[in-house]
Amino acid sequence: MAFRHPHRDQIRIEDVLSALGNSVRLAAVRVLDAGGEHNCTSVLNTLGITAKSTMTHHWRVLRDSGVIRQQPSGRENLLALRREDLDARYPGLLDAILSGARADDALEHRDRTDPAA
Amino acid sequence: MAFRHPHRDQIRIEDVLSALGNSVRLAAVRVLDAGGEHNCTSVLNTLGITAKSTMTHHWRVLRDSGVIRQQPSGRENLLALRREDLDARYPGLLDAILSGARADDALEHRDRTDPAA
Repeated sequence: MAFRHPHRDQIRIEDVLSALGNSVRLAAVRVLDAGGEHNCTSVLNTLGITAKSTMTHHWRVLRDSGVIRQQPSGRENLLALRREDLDARYPGLLDAILSGARADDALEHRDRTDPAA
Repeated sequence: MAFRHPHRDQIRIEDVLSALGNSVRLAAVRVLDAGGEHNCTSVLNTLGITAKSTMTHHWRVLRDSGVIRQQPSGRENLLALRREDLDARYPGLLDAILSGARADDALEHRDRTDPAA
């Protein structure tokens, strides 16, 4: 089964923000951004998520918003971040979001290791 | 009644993205970003929204995520975009989002005026 994806011009910023405004989906996009070839299973394994069924919904939200491309390949689905499309439509947005997510991580790590901070 | 707002360090990017991933809230933030002093009523008037009650929820989401500050002032609530906090935590994010929203507008305007585009 082939999936439907919005064309670059059909992407809307509120859909992108809404898709990425969820910790699981944002974590999945960070895995895809880190490079390498990924399918659903490999992202789940990287994230340590065992419930494959809940991810089906998340993949759909990311796909429908234009954030990722999902292509059948044998018995799996290959996943890719649509960085070129997102960068063309919203220059700087994806990088600001990914940097922001890393900044949040650093802050939380600091708070965990130094509760007095 | 005073409202609770997260401290700058308590802001989380998925909450900001989720708050802005909604067309009404994104439009409200664009009104605040355009400058001037605003209260709930003046933003609603600018947006042409008459249902004040639905906005109560939207103001809460924007406030709880750290995107806006809402302060009682007489019988109204003054609203302000927390640009300084957001720019400090997520450099470039707010500008990329606001530019992206304007780019979407331009694209939709083009599609409306030239259906063959």
